[in-house]
Amino acid sequence: MPPQKQTQQKLLIKGGKVVNDDLSVVADVFVEDGVVQQVGPNLNPEPSTGLIVLDATNKLVIPGGIDTHTHMEFPFMGSRSKDDFYTGTKAAIAGGTTMIIDFAIPQKGCSLTEAFDTWKSWADPKVCCDYSLHVAVTWWSNKVKEEMKHLVQNKGVNSFKMFMAYKDIYMVNDEELFAAFSCCKELGAVAQVHAENGELIAQGAKKMLAMGITGPEGHELSRPEEVEAEATQRAITIANAVNCPLYVVHVMSKSSARVISNARREGKVVYGEPIAASLGTDGTNYWNKDWAHAAAYVMGPPLRPDPSTPGFLMNLLANDDLSATGTDNCTFDTCQKALGKDDFTKIPNGVNGVEDRMSVIWEKGVYSGKMDENRFVAVTSTNAAKIFNLYPRKGRIAVGSDADIVIWDPKATRTISAKTHHQANNFNIFEGMVCHGVPVATVSRGKVVYEGGVFNVTAGEGKYVSRPPFPPYVYKRVRQREQVCQPAPVKRAPYTGVVSGISIMQK
Amino acid sequence: MPPQKQTQQKLLIKGGKVVNDDLSVVADVFVEDGVVQQVGPNLNPEPSTGLIVLDATNKLVIPGGIDTHTHMEFPFMGSRSKDDFYTGTKAAIAGGTTMIIDFAIPQKGCSLTEAFDTWKSWADPKVCCDYSLHVAVTWWSNKVKEEMKHLVQNKGVNSFKMFMAYKDIYMVNDEELFAAFSCCKELGAVAQVHAENGELIAQGAKKMLAMGITGPEGHELSRPEEVEAEATQRAITIANAVNCPLYVVHVMSKSSARVISNARREGKVVYGEPIAASLGTDGTNYWNKDWAHAAAYVMGPPLRPDPSTPGFLMNLLANDDLSATGTDNCTFDTCQKALGKDDFTKIPNGVNGVEDRMSVIWEKGVYSGKMDENRFVAVTSTNAAKIFNLYPRKGRIAVGSDADIVIWDPKATRTISAKTHHQANNFNIFEGMVCHGVPVATVSRGKVVYEGGVFNVTAGEGKYVSRPPFPPYVYKRVRQREQVCQPAPVKRAPYTGVVSGISIMQK
Amino acid sequence: MPPQKQTQQKLLIKGGKVVNDDLSVVADVFVEDGVVQQVGPNLNPEPSTGLIVLDATNKLVIPGGIDTHTHMEFPFMGSRSKDDFYTGTKAAIAGGTTMIIDFAIPQKGCSLTEAFDTWKSWADPKVCCDYSLHVAVTWWSNKVKEEMKHLVQNKGVNSFKMFMAYKDIYMVNDEELFAAFSCCKELGAVAQVHAENGELIAQGAKKMLAMGITGPEGHELSRPEEVEAEATQRAITIANAVNCPLYVVHVMSKSSARVISNARREGKVVYGEPIAASLGTDGTNYWNKDWAHAAAYVMGPPLRPDPSTPGFLMNLLANDDLSATGTDNCTFDTCQKALGKDDFTKIPNGVNGVEDRMSVIWEKGVYSGKMDENRFVAVTSTNAAKIFNLYPRKGRIAVGSDADIVIWDPKATRTISAKTHHQANNFNIFEGMVCHGVPVATVSRGKVVYEGGVFNVTAGEGKYVSRPPFPPYVYKRVRQREQVCQPAPVKRAPYTGVVSGISIMQK
Amino acid sequence: MPPQKQTQQKLLIKGGKVVNDDLSVVADVFVEDGVVQQVGPNLNPEPSTGLIVLDATNKLVIPGGIDTHTHMEFPFMGSRSKDDFYTGTKAAIAGGTTMIIDFAIPQKGCSLTEAFDTWKSWADPKVCCDYSLHVAVTWWSNKVKEEMKHLVQNKGVNSFKMFMAYKDIYMVNDEELFAAFSCCKELGAVAQVHAENGELIAQGAKKMLAMGITGPEGHELSRPEEVEAEATQRAITIANAVNCPLYVVHVMSKSSARVISNARREGKVVYGEPIAASLGTDGTNYWNKDWAHAAAYVMGPPLRPDPSTPGFLMNLLANDDLSATGTDNCTFDTCQKALGKDDFTKIPNGVNGVEDRMSVIWEKGVYSGKMDENRFVAVTSTNAAKIFNLYPRKGRIAVGSDADIVIWDPKATRTISAKTHHQANNFNIFEGMVCHGVPVATVSRGKVVYEGGVFNVTAGEGKYVSRPPFPPYVYKRVRQREQVCQPAPVKRAPYTGVVSGISIMQK
Repeated sequence: MPPQKQTQQKLLIKGGKVVNDDLSVVADVFVEDGVVQQVGPNLNPEPSTGLIVLDATNKLVIPGGIDTHTHMEFPFMGSRSKDDFYTGTKAAIAGGTTMIIDFAIPQKGCSLTEAFDTWKSWADPKVCCDYSLHVAVTWWSNKVKEEMKHLVQNKGVNSFKMFMAYKDIYMVNDEELFAAFSCCKELGAVAQVHAENGELIAQGAKKMLAMGITGPEGHELSRPEEVEAEATQRAITIANAVNCPLYVVHVMSKSSARVISNARREGKVVYGEPIAASLGTDGTNYWNKDWAHAAAYVMGPPLRPDPSTPGFLMNLLANDDLSATGTDNCTFDTCQKALGKDDFTKIPNGVNGVEDRMSVIWEKGVYSGKMDENRFVAVTSTNAAKIFNLYPRKGRIAVGSDADIVIWDPKATRTISAKTHHQANNFNIFEGMVCHGVPVATVSRGKVVYEGGVFNVTAGEGKYVSRPPFPPYVYKRVRQREQVCQPAPVKRAPYTGVVSGISIMQK
Repeated sequence: MPPQKQTQQKLLIKGGKVVNDDLSVVADVFVEDGVVQQVGPNLNPEPSTGLIVLDATNKLVIPGGIDTHTHMEFPFMGSRSKDDFYTGTKAAIAGGTTMIIDFAIPQKGCSLTEAFDTWKSWADPKVCCDYSLHVAVTWWSNKVKEEMKHLVQNKGVNSFKMFMAYKDIYMVNDEELFAAFSCCKELGAVAQVHAENGELIAQGAKKMLAMGITGPEGHELSRPEEVEAEATQRAITIANAVNCPLYVVHVMSKSSARVISNARREGKVVYGEPIAASLGTDGTNYWNKDWAHAAAYVMGPPLRPDPSTPGFLMNLLANDDLSATGTDNCTFDTCQKALGKDDFTKIPNGVNGVEDRMSVIWEKGVYSGKMDENRFVAVTSTNAAKIFNLYPRKGRIAVGSDADIVIWDPKATRTISAKTHHQANNFNIFEGMVCHGVPVATVSRGKVVYEGGVFNVTAGEGKYVSRPPFPPYVYKRVRQREQVCQPAPVKRAPYTGVVSGISIMQK
Repeated sequence: MPPQKQTQQKLLIKGGKVVNDDLSVVADVFVEDGVVQQVGPNLNPEPSTGLIVLDATNKLVIPGGIDTHTHMEFPFMGSRSKDDFYTGTKAAIAGGTTMIIDFAIPQKGCSLTEAFDTWKSWADPKVCCDYSLHVAVTWWSNKVKEEMKHLVQNKGVNSFKMFMAYKDIYMVNDEELFAAFSCCKELGAVAQVHAENGELIAQGAKKMLAMGITGPEGHELSRPEEVEAEATQRAITIANAVNCPLYVVHVMSKSSARVISNARREGKVVYGEPIAASLGTDGTNYWNKDWAHAAAYVMGPPLRPDPSTPGFLMNLLANDDLSATGTDNCTFDTCQKALGKDDFTKIPNGVNGVEDRMSVIWEKGVYSGKMDENRFVAVTSTNAAKIFNLYPRKGRIAVGSDADIVIWDPKATRTISAKTHHQANNFNIFEGMVCHGVPVATVSRGKVVYEGGVFNVTAGEGKYVSRPPFPPYVYKRVRQREQVCQPAPVKRAPYTGVVSGISIMQK
Repeated sequence: MPPQKQTQQKLLIKGGKVVNDDLSVVADVFVEDGVVQQVGPNLNPEPSTGLIVLDATNKLVIPGGIDTHTHMEFPFMGSRSKDDFYTGTKAAIAGGTTMIIDFAIPQKGCSLTEAFDTWKSWADPKVCCDYSLHVAVTWWSNKVKEEMKHLVQNKGVNSFKMFMAYKDIYMVNDEELFAAFSCCKELGAVAQVHAENGELIAQGAKKMLAMGITGPEGHELSRPEEVEAEATQRAITIANAVNCPLYVVHVMSKSSARVISNARREGKVVYGEPIAASLGTDGTNYWNKDWAHAAAYVMGPPLRPDPSTPGFLMNLLANDDLSATGTDNCTFDTCQKALGKDDFTKIPNGVNGVEDRMSVIWEKGVYSGKMDENRFVAVTSTNAAKIFNLYPRKGRIAVGSDADIVIWDPKATRTISAKTHHQANNFNIFEGMVCHGVPVATVSRGKVVYEGGVFNVTAGEGKYVSRPPFPPYVYKRVRQREQVCQPAPVKRAPYTGVVSGISIMQK
């Protein structure tokens, strides 16, 4: 009975610097039953069978990463993403991530609950670390509304994603967005959007193909960053009209990030999620002479050709203009990408990231001096945990928290490569990047699942994590505004004069 | 034959300071056949019968104003705007405006050409000064496209307005906007938008009524300025994707003006039109305790409650962030407004302005030191003439120009009031405003039609002015970009490897 | 021996919701020896003599406020601020603040250490709660540099304030700023600035007086907000050139806050401190017809006449564009203010705030829905503690923290008035403001010093708190940048050609 | 007597498209006595001896360029700029520029009038086209003030430049700036600033040298763009406090341009001058491996390494956020630059541009689609003429204007190179740039001075052009504000209560 074995495991992490988002302190961490039991200097748990001791001297002890955005084994664009819930979560663990949140995505007209069940049935037997599921709303009806309620109340879902792109497939229009946001607000869920103007993408793609541009560069040219910024602005405006918190997934451009940042300054409850790809590489790759290379970077929204984009996004992430980080991990190998070899609109969209996110952010964020180790923890786990109502169970090392912990060596370096990564894909968009900051050991629910390059995982030992509605971090302000900031009618004497219309209107 | 009489009239304007948008110079102006023949010092035309001499000493001699945005006798919201083409243009003349551009607006599904003909049939027998017609595109089909072409090529129309608001009535969606903009670009027309998110307005109105807010304040509360800014951003993004010049009518808010201003900084070909109302008053009036007062200010988009709005817009107008000025003159008297006495959504939308625009801009713009007299001319006539391809026939006092001229006394003051104005309406939204800058005499096509408070007009003596396509001021950049700034495909070896999809997709 | 008594006191706060900046949780708090010993549900300390139990059911239990900016008994402008360290800290306690940081300010040419000692000698016998001292650098020399080092290494000072205003009195020029910032960086101190352009103030005051404007409105007119924004921009630029963290005291204007906010987006290590006055009232008061009223608001930089300023600043504070809050509490009564009855430049600058800061921020920030209770804690204590290296001893309720705790009733209201406040002054700039959020009881170092309107304080029982250099929250990034982000010379072959100058230069 | 010959010359430019800033029209231009006599279709001046006819069919006929910023034969940094007033103006003519405005720059403590006379004595015998002189204010005293008055009233000077950089050499402090701006305002002159923080430059240079960075890259590293933006912000703030119009010379960075643009939006009377160098190349050249190449780009403020700078500045120039263009032409050859071969602070600052400005702006501005031909005229001559009160004598082709005219072939291309240029220098910072837009013929005061690559110039035939004070384009708003926008004191009852100070202040 492996579960029992796991819960009985005792673990002592000794001598590391425990890094939470507010503070770093040298302390030991004692874990039992998958939960942190003690944090303090010189812990001395009574010796017992099964006590594992990890030496973390001169290392950091950080909360395991939460990847807010993955698509494992996702059936998409005539293919299926290469990393399934097993290889995907294994790779995650190797990179210092101990929880992923994937997306259950129903086709238009199909049941949300069924989609949820389907995705869960794929994940449960395979996951090596904890996971949860966002659910997409790709169409609208009363039934959809009922299902959202059901998912929130019975299935532990507190976030729904709406697509403003992928016209005729997943895209919803403004009226549907309004309805979905209203429903999220009522249920205490976080509304998420893929923010791109689907109409402009459709037209842009047509135009590029007509101009003879069929390669991956056409992907970016047909949906430049204004297309993303426009939709971001629109989503924020609609969400704000409903007083619904909004989470913008995969922020890829400076202009879109600026829209979010400005909205936050005005007090709007909106969160932006840059991803490993947008923080670590850029869209100049679409102009690479090697088709396979260029195609490997195709994802929606595209990476941007402005090479100052990653640094800009990292600055905003460091400054809490952007909040949490995911990867949109959705890997397709070259043979799959080749479905679009003659037409960029047919290249399956997606890139890797689940394994490398933590290192990329450390390198470009912490090593570069843009953020400190505490902010690193905030953006790789704590903020995600707060937004999706997992805090302080996840995203913090404290008594009572899940023992999802990484021992991180800030001095060590590694070079990212498809040759050595643990993902199922044959390409890595960060190929050759030298990263300071290496996960030395990963602990999932108290079990050492990865150490010194060696896995100790069992498919299915991760668990689905329910997320209750109304995350306080998100909803306190929303609710207060609902109660306090409502307009009232002006008191006036009624108009008692003549009223005059015209009987015949223009035909 | 009055027309003959008019064309034979000779006119000498003596001793004034002739103000064009680039320069002011003391000079006489000699007019014959409705056209400026000479501009220079000490003109001495040979004395002849019928030479009229106007003394402009210590006065300014400026190009007659062009009001880019009026709705005379407009059948709208169960009523018809009070000022028809006769009273409307007479009032215009009294205020120093010698040309208006009205809108022909077909119902959804109806012919654009018929709408144009209808409006022209209303205007021709009544107008006291020159006019032209924008045409609205309220739906989309191949027939609409054909009609647009016809109107441009045969009817002198070079501007089309699309509504992003008035859901189910005039509103077009993004796909239709894209098509209409594309068509405008092809034809050399200027695309115009009423920029508000119609979906949010519809929802907002429902919400306000549900909250018991039925008065005019509900009008603004249901469509706050972000609703305007969002649509402005969207329209600019779509227009830019098409490389179509865009003209945003009635800019009412700081945020919308900021969107336009930012887009211009980025090189986008977009023009913003604030109106007399947004430059001269504000939305605090919606909270007036007197229903009739509050209702009088109802127009779409609404005036904004932020009292710093007019000054902000004037600053941007002074700085060429905003370009031309109209009024959206669309007057309804209190009895008509009272159609919405129990429901603000039924209050006919519209305010006055055609008579007061020039004085309001002088007072708030020139007298206040925000702009000089030359910029005043630019924003009241020259820029409109350039954008709508009437320049230098209109918008400039130069040899060969139409003799649409105003003698303007910058020292005199007048107090705006419904009691003394010449519009058909019983209310004036600028009531009580003391304005420096008074039109002493107005000349239309060489005829003195107003002097010292006395009219000398005949209904129908104004003329419809054809506007040729491809205004150089607007289209030179557009065409150059079309030719020079196009992306090219990357040259690559074709992908020759394996291609692999999946046969069975998720149901 | 009262100190002993204090340390033996045991305290149990039962049933409240413990609010830290990251989380709220219903828990009891057990305190002994002035330090928090336990936080958790249903604590049951063994009954002992002297156990005091406070019932906090339905109340919030928050870290005591830290007022980052006070001037008690400050000799200034021919007067001395009314609240001394006794009445000032007593009032603080009544308002829920348990620590103040005051300023030791030497005259030009005088010793910093002596100033420090002087202020400490005033404070030590009087303070009713903990305090610390920033030290001002009002001139520059090697001696100043030596003294700064001494204060940092031996006196627990980690912050120095430089004045860019008060020409000829406290003002330092750019060269001195550069030197002082460099020294701060070296020592691990936080550089603080009073950011106003002193030259423009001097000239502006002269101009206003010459125009016959002698009343308090002249104060604002002579130093409008651009004067503040300019200096803020300059200070940030200089600090960034030195890689020195900067803390801008009393942010009073939208434009200055925007400068800070933009700098943070670019990754600059800068913190802005709005104060109770700038968050709770505005500069329209300078135009009050009652001289005494108008004069009461005179402080530097002035409050701003734009009434949207407080809401704007609160939005930025909520969004972490601004970081910590103080008061600049520096009270002068009407008779003192009257020193400037004929000349606004002689009105002693200063307002109240130390008592009302917490309530004002709760009302305008939390009750209004702009921030939640956790962010309230962040901006009233946690962030200050982090920036000035007091965290987690101060600014958090956790095991091991100082028991500076407030029981806060978020539902209760009180009306601010000079009649009922505990400050020594006869005027309150927030007079009449109804505030939700009332401190029910205040605990300082484990002692209940205020409860239900009754004080239990002894002069001198507060303590001077040393602040070690190099606050990690501030300096981690600074140090990393120092190590990693340095430019390197380009490697080039040396130039070996002819070199040619001219021997005779222009005289 | 060549002058007589010149004035008698008659010239007919046939068949070209005459381009002014507001309009392009196909017309002939007839010139006599150095002045435009007629502009119109099919001009047929009576045949006379000496009528020269230039065929401009398919060409543009534009006002000759005005270079607002040159330093010919400038004694600077131990050297003297290579191009003197002869080679410099000859090169200007070859490039389509027919007027330059140079700077007379006294040493600190020296007479402004003497400097003016010196520069004039250098220029008068050499210039091949018209010129004028700005005068620098490098120190302050009553004598300086008197001299400024003298220069304005008797010498045709209406612009004074103040340096905020070059500490100890030319730099003035804020107090001096304030005085100089005040004086400019009084006299009706335009204040100009070299906007960089001289203190930061001095410190930055010290730091770079200390770090071993001695090459040209140290030049930029020691004065990054924030140093420029800060000073720009400061100058605008001070100028605005005085209500003095401000002209910022050589805008080199995005951030500085943004500061200007934002100020203009707020209604401040400020003009920004980008230069050929900042519009056509960038600061990556400082990192060139060839020292001579890198050094050739050294100028102050430096070019910026951000390669998107030129496009950004051109966008703002196209949009009238920036107004006029100069070159800061101040050429030093490699041997002169080599004075700083071991220390970048000793490299004489300066680049070329006077010959290439027009072509660079055409290529990067017009050919690229950023501006049209009319805006090109505005930014290369008209705006300069308006700002410095030369309009419409210069900057427009109209009856009565000086016949400074260029025939411009928009289709032809040329490649810029030091091998073919007409400047005295051995290096060209635009080397290799292919430019559309070539000057086919240049007419100066009615004389064809350059045609088809052949000069017809005589040293000294250009004239010094007096510029009267109070340029209307600049000063109308300024004066109106002076009269109308002044604050008034609040009317109050005097304070009659007790006044209380303290007798003994802190020592």
